[in-house]
Amino acid sequence: MSVRVGIWGFGAMGRGIAKMLHDKRNVTVVGVCDNAEELLGKKLEEFGRFSDVTITDDIERVFAAEPDVLFHATDSFTADSYPKVKKALENGIDVISTAEEMAYPYANEPALAESMDQLAKENGARVLGTGINPGFVMDLLAIALSGAVIDIDRIEVERVNSLSPFGPTVMREQGVGLSLEVFRERQSRGELAGHVGFKESVHMIAKALGYEISRFEQQMEPIVTSVDRKSPYGEAKAGHVAGIDMKAQGYVGDEVFIDMRHPQQIEPEAEGTSTGDYILIKGTPEVNLSIRPEIEGGLGTIATCVNAMPLLLEAEPGLKTMIDLPVPRAFTTAPNIRKN
Amino acid sequence: MSVRVGIWGFGAMGRGIAKMLHDKRNVTVVGVCDNAEELLGKKLEEFGRFSDVTITDDIERVFAAEPDVLFHATDSFTADSYPKVKKALENGIDVISTAEEMAYPYANEPALAESMDQLAKENGARVLGTGINPGFVMDLLAIALSGAVIDIDRIEVERVNSLSPFGPTVMREQGVGLSLEVFRERQSRGELAGHVGFKESVHMIAKALGYEISRFEQQMEPIVTSVDRKSPYGEAKAGHVAGIDMKAQGYVGDEVFIDMRHPQQIEPEAEGTSTGDYILIKGTPEVNLSIRPEIEGGLGTIATCVNAMPLLLEAEPGLKTMIDLPVPRAFTTAPNIRKN
Repeated sequence: MSVRVGIWGFGAMGRGIAKMLHDKRNVTVVGVCDNAEELLGKKLEEFGRFSDVTITDDIERVFAAEPDVLFHATDSFTADSYPKVKKALENGIDVISTAEEMAYPYANEPALAESMDQLAKENGARVLGTGINPGFVMDLLAIALSGAVIDIDRIEVERVNSLSPFGPTVMREQGVGLSLEVFRERQSRGELAGHVGFKESVHMIAKALGYEISRFEQQMEPIVTSVDRKSPYGEAKAGHVAGIDMKAQGYVGDEVFIDMRHPQQIEPEAEGTSTGDYILIKGTPEVNLSIRPEIEGGLGTIATCVNAMPLLLEAEPGLKTMIDLPVPRAFTTAPNIRKN
Repeated sequence: MSVRVGIWGFGAMGRGIAKMLHDKRNVTVVGVCDNAEELLGKKLEEFGRFSDVTITDDIERVFAAEPDVLFHATDSFTADSYPKVKKALENGIDVISTAEEMAYPYANEPALAESMDQLAKENGARVLGTGINPGFVMDLLAIALSGAVIDIDRIEVERVNSLSPFGPTVMREQGVGLSLEVFRERQSRGELAGHVGFKESVHMIAKALGYEISRFEQQMEPIVTSVDRKSPYGEAKAGHVAGIDMKAQGYVGDEVFIDMRHPQQIEPEAEGTSTGDYILIKGTPEVNLSIRPEIEGGLGTIATCVNAMPLLLEAEPGLKTMIDLPVPRAFTTAPNIRKN
């Protein structure tokens, strides 16, 4: 199998995907599209051990290089992703998207999901959204654990992570350093992103387990620090906002069946919070899982996307989610598949 | 979908499977085969809320009831399972087996695996071996986690469980209560079962990740207690054997790539051992998972077998393993699929 790959979006995710793919035998990055001025006209090799592909802002030039698969890493929402995904599918190109909502587009955009499924089938192509979360920790892994359980009463998932490794954009989106007043103001204007993906995770779990979600709710609260905290790109004085605590509940009937929490903040250790991924399946038998520290978000998203590629290429055409594919697995650099 | 089920073997696993299936809408147990004298001629309803099916020692009578799927719960080894699986497949019946080696029969019985695959395809049927271990904790779950990892150096898996809930057969097979001398004697005669399944787990992981195992090794050591221990069916005085500690290594090239440990003993807490399932993926990013306590083995095996049924029924004919199917998931008793 020789796979030709295009990449749309050459930020941290796109670059990480290119780097990971570089180590695979019989995979070639044939085109990269990004419209950031500082990237245009640069060759991939300036970013490491990559090929001499030149970064372009014209996706048609990437399509002209005839990729089999396009990694799409420019958006968070399905509505923004849709025109790009559509173009790729119409060219018969498979798509793997990092967009959070694309992990389960049926949750927020059922009509667009249906349309992508049709387009993919008409063109003999496949489309998948994945990433560490949504796509893996708070949904796929909980689903996998449920496979060892006889009766399920309730699923509780928590991902506690640190924002300290992230840059200025994330600090701004997560309100780090703001006073409580300014946080509330920005929150009311919808300027704080928080986590995108709860609804996707909840609906993916429900679909896999054969439940109907009767109600979905989500809350966003500031994490106010009682001590001064400082990370490379963020700072929160005592009494100010160190991050965002988000919660969501998926109801079946009148009861919460899926309960999620995802607090993100700089320097969580400053007040004794240790990071980790936690899944509790209440039922028979009860399953109580911890991953400590949490699976690192950036690396994990790159890995889930690239590792999904061989499985997606073997799937039937259409819109896929992680529950349609065989269990995830590393697409390794094992000696027998290492480049040369 | 209305599914007719047969069960071959009505011990703890077979009964648990019948009980779990009873709660599913559109699933009917149509026949049970077991040759234990105390079971023959009894009706299933004597064992709970089951149907009026009469237990028989003639599998042909079960086949005559035209099951779609047969749960096979009478063996540990592929060689012993093969004639039974063959009969079912020749009748066009899908098989789900609790036999440990059947979780990945290519590891120890590649010719029989090939033959079952052929038979299944010729008869439009499917065959799957699964269970909590092998089949889930020490293989499938490690494989799933590897899907979130960019580079893997090594996989370490440990399952620390208690034998206290088990009965006299397990006590005997695991050497509980023996002096060290007698343990060594029985071990040398091959009379101590220990854990069956390391080789299957190691080869399943390697296959999923695209590695070749160059060497497989396995060790069995007694767990000698320094305090008196007592469980409902077992007793080990200080200085005697409380259980068996088993280890295995799967090499890639000259290096251990997969390292497994599975100590099983009565009353592990007596000397400060707490039970759990542990998976450490050394690589980028590192993933360090704990499930505490361990997923209960009996319930977990019943669950993995029954939960696999809907996924197996939708697969192409042939011999399947857990890595060929979509990610495991609970086959729930959700309101929308609850009986009546």
